[in-house]
Amino acid sequence: MAIKYPNGHLPLYNEVRKKQLKKATTRTTFSNRGMRFEEAINQSNDYYLNRNIAVIHKKPTPIQIVKVDYPKRSAAVIKEAYFKEASTTDYNGVYRGYYLDFEAKETKNKTSFPLKNLHEHQINHMRQCIEHKGICFILLWFSSLNRCFLIDSPFIIEAWEKQATEKKSLTLNQIEEIGIEITVGIAPRIPFIEAVNQLIELKEKKKYVK
Amino acid sequence: MAIKYPNGHLPLYNEVRKKQLKKATTRTTFSNRGMRFEEAINQSNDYYLNRNIAVIHKKPTPIQIVKVDYPKRSAAVIKEAYFKEASTTDYNGVYRGYYLDFEAKETKNKTSFPLKNLHEHQINHMRQCIEHKGICFILLWFSSLNRCFLIDSPFIIEAWEKQATEKKSLTLNQIEEIGIEITVGIAPRIPFIEAVNQLIELKEKKKYVK
Repeated sequence: MAIKYPNGHLPLYNEVRKKQLKKATTRTTFSNRGMRFEEAINQSNDYYLNRNIAVIHKKPTPIQIVKVDYPKRSAAVIKEAYFKEASTTDYNGVYRGYYLDFEAKETKNKTSFPLKNLHEHQINHMRQCIEHKGICFILLWFSSLNRCFLIDSPFIIEAWEKQATEKKSLTLNQIEEIGIEITVGIAPRIPFIEAVNQLIELKEKKKYVK
Repeated sequence: MAIKYPNGHLPLYNEVRKKQLKKATTRTTFSNRGMRFEEAINQSNDYYLNRNIAVIHKKPTPIQIVKVDYPKRSAAVIKEAYFKEASTTDYNGVYRGYYLDFEAKETKNKTSFPLKNLHEHQINHMRQCIEHKGICFILLWFSSLNRCFLIDSPFIIEAWEKQATEKKSLTLNQIEEIGIEITVGIAPRIPFIEAVNQLIELKEKKKYVK
């Protein structure tokens, strides 16, 4: 089941976007300093945690352990293990009493975000979280454009369901319309909590969350 | 900082407890069928997820990967890795718009729960989650008694802070008073969401959560 916004949401997003575009002209980059997007998110989470703003952690990579050695007088050593596919998104936590859940994605593409970067079970997980009134989104980094967006999961789910082919995607134009642009900074590097505040404000107006 | 309940909470808990004790006389066990407590929790989470009641997942075990082989035509094999200490609790998720966060603990002890089963950073994590209005608790299994309790984290934190020695613990008597007893069942095996409902009701009355 897709959770869709009434058409009435667009003006508010556009209002927000205009302000962002002004700010975005002064944006800094981290890609040219060789920093990966995920590391920037992790540092931002540390920033929010240390300042008591939000409690968000990256989940450990799921691993299937096959063989473990227990040498005497030293720590157990995993000798054979395999990477498993994650069944949920990478990040979750709590902020202002809200359950936050998100995935960080990076694309070199300049004109669209191909949804093949997501898995069916991640889409399902987002559906479940939204149904239980979690705040669920994707943080998307266009590495070739140095632009970062928060996209509310209902838009992702809608695009996923509408497009039957393997070429599912959201164009940059669509993302500019539905997403909230985040101006990359220094501390925190990805100040996504500001965008989450906008999202919560919008959802509270529309009564999508308690 | 310890978050403490006013003394006024006790009557409500005692009311609840009386009902539980009645039910508890018919309780089933899983320990004698060789099932571990954690597995019972995981199955309960699956039950809640499949019935669209709550979205709770166990976090993967944190592992430090040292060496990975990439054989041709087959999956990457982790050849050397070590277990890391978890920096948070094991379980979190979303229920009725609330952020849930908990740890599952098992003790063979018949008269108390030694707090050495918890780590300082887990206590810190609980403090942080509570401060951001998450619902945070421990599910405790007395394996020798076949009794299961939900203990709200503020009580754990208070005990942790009060007791400076290494012999920190909560006695069974204390747990009977502050905890919510859970009658172990078949489906779900650990019906802890009922106890969470009681906890939310209590917190809403006391305005500890929104």
